[in-house]
Amino acid sequence: MTENTSVVLARRPQGKPQPEDFQLSQSVLPTSLKPGQLLLKNHFISLDAGFRNWMDEGSGDAVLPAMAIDAPVMGLVLGQVEQTEHKQYTVGDWIMARLAWQQYSITDASDFLIKVPVDDGYPPNYFLGVLGDTGLSAYFGMLDIGKPSDGETVLVSAAGGAVGSIAGQIATLKGARAVGIAGGAAKCARLVAELGYAACIDHHGDVAAQLAEHCPEGVDVYFDNVGGPLLETVLDHIALGARIALCGAVATYGDPQPGPSNLFQLTTREARMEGFFAHTQVERYPAARAELAGWLEQGKIVAPEYRLHGIEQVGPAFCDLFAGRNFGKTVVEL
Amino acid sequence: MTENTSVVLARRPQGKPQPEDFQLSQSVLPTSLKPGQLLLKNHFISLDAGFRNWMDEGSGDAVLPAMAIDAPVMGLVLGQVEQTEHKQYTVGDWIMARLAWQQYSITDASDFLIKVPVDDGYPPNYFLGVLGDTGLSAYFGMLDIGKPSDGETVLVSAAGGAVGSIAGQIATLKGARAVGIAGGAAKCARLVAELGYAACIDHHGDVAAQLAEHCPEGVDVYFDNVGGPLLETVLDHIALGARIALCGAVATYGDPQPGPSNLFQLTTREARMEGFFAHTQVERYPAARAELAGWLEQGKIVAPEYRLHGIEQVGPAFCDLFAGRNFGKTVVEL
Repeated sequence: MTENTSVVLARRPQGKPQPEDFQLSQSVLPTSLKPGQLLLKNHFISLDAGFRNWMDEGSGDAVLPAMAIDAPVMGLVLGQVEQTEHKQYTVGDWIMARLAWQQYSITDASDFLIKVPVDDGYPPNYFLGVLGDTGLSAYFGMLDIGKPSDGETVLVSAAGGAVGSIAGQIATLKGARAVGIAGGAAKCARLVAELGYAACIDHHGDVAAQLAEHCPEGVDVYFDNVGGPLLETVLDHIALGARIALCGAVATYGDPQPGPSNLFQLTTREARMEGFFAHTQVERYPAARAELAGWLEQGKIVAPEYRLHGIEQVGPAFCDLFAGRNFGKTVVEL
Repeated sequence: MTENTSVVLARRPQGKPQPEDFQLSQSVLPTSLKPGQLLLKNHFISLDAGFRNWMDEGSGDAVLPAMAIDAPVMGLVLGQVEQTEHKQYTVGDWIMARLAWQQYSITDASDFLIKVPVDDGYPPNYFLGVLGDTGLSAYFGMLDIGKPSDGETVLVSAAGGAVGSIAGQIATLKGARAVGIAGGAAKCARLVAELGYAACIDHHGDVAAQLAEHCPEGVDVYFDNVGGPLLETVLDHIALGARIALCGAVATYGDPQPGPSNLFQLTTREARMEGFFAHTQVERYPAARAELAGWLEQGKIVAPEYRLHGIEQVGPAFCDLFAGRNFGKTVVEL
């Protein structure tokens, strides 16, 4: 009889999630699997702010149904196959999957689920970060939509987050001048020192004034992880032909707000705003990962991580994302 | 001594322009031109809602300075060269130019100014409408950004306006199902009967319900001439991979409003929103015009026009655009 600890949604978060919105819950794993099922032992839980979107009543969409109260919270997990009744998977396989925050997961593999090639020698947790959905979001969003070129100014919000930390480095690698936006002088200093940003805008200060200072020719690419009022401020500073990659909108998750009143800037600046997901481009993962891995090996990018330990830290770690406590990819090791 | 009647900005419009915002003013033309100048006798004034943008205090930008009180109102005119001291232009040339609402214009040709090929046999006024900036806006916006394909649903706001009337027809021509948005049952009926729209949504009614009815699979392309709250409603109905061409935002000119609170739909639907101008693509005008002219000759598109007469009608005709009184391209013949 194996016990399984889950993190369940104790109540629906109001605005930013709080640790009390989550609660631990015990259950017992079934003694045997059904045909087609596999049992994963999860080693890492990935914390991704976007999942906040499915915590509200009636928030279900094509990706996920709305999460239910007292049910395990959905997220991304990384684990190893411990038992299998599915012929495509073998005991010991490393799997990244869109599954609940639990020590063990049982899935029939119809969920979003990817076998990760850990035998390539990377730490498995890289497949949740730089070589996983967040690194790939940075990669696809920056290269497919942002398309930064030599000398252009690339602005990244939540610049020290899991996605932003990689997005900024890719922009620099492509010859652009990366400018970050983050909260607080200490975090801004780290962004410049550790992640190669040319400058960093502190969103606790006057953002418009700092944009005028650090992006005097305007913003050619805005890689947006935040949305909300910040997007409106940035729109006033976009250059002709700007590209805005809408990756996330952490400012508005669970807290819908009026959008930018100056969207017409897209017309007067002949600019483009485009949203995207990494997970719909699974067939491109191997090639994208190979390029990211090459950059890691050559020391051209680094992969900062904010790691906590133990299933009881999963809820608090999720809340840390909204408080901006993380630097790099946030994971909890079980 | 030749008298010149101008329409001047009597006061800054509050929100939608009113006829009293404009006033006639008399002046006398100089007896001779300076080197490099040319004198145009204007035959048509084009009315284009976008010029409302430069009527507010401090509204100047890269395209135009803010218009001044008591100065002639800027717009697009079509006229013939009556005298010339500029060697690139000959008496009798037809010129379309971004110049003021006046019977006669004097320009040194440094303004936005295009010689129109009226010897091709088209009525000169076509070069303000279907073969001019509005037709070309429809053409570039629909084909470059919208890219409608067979069986897709293309939604057009201000569907009976100068741009919308052509944009909808181009979508139909490309095999898409064009759905219009316009004000009032009578106008909607004309859109279906005369412009080939498959259906028309009356924005005086419940737009969301009509969108659900007429675009049950979602909107693949939204050609937006209106902006404002309508854009928010439409965003809730976009299909995966939708393209939104931001051509105009007549709802917000002179009346800034919060933007859509659901911009994140662009991410969840992996959709794109892009603004554009026709006038920055002057080098593509001849090829685009040739294709539009071909469609006109083959009867594949029609070019509806709302025509008024006399310089005193220019101000009222401009106001008609905001009241939705026009059907097709609005011009005043002088």
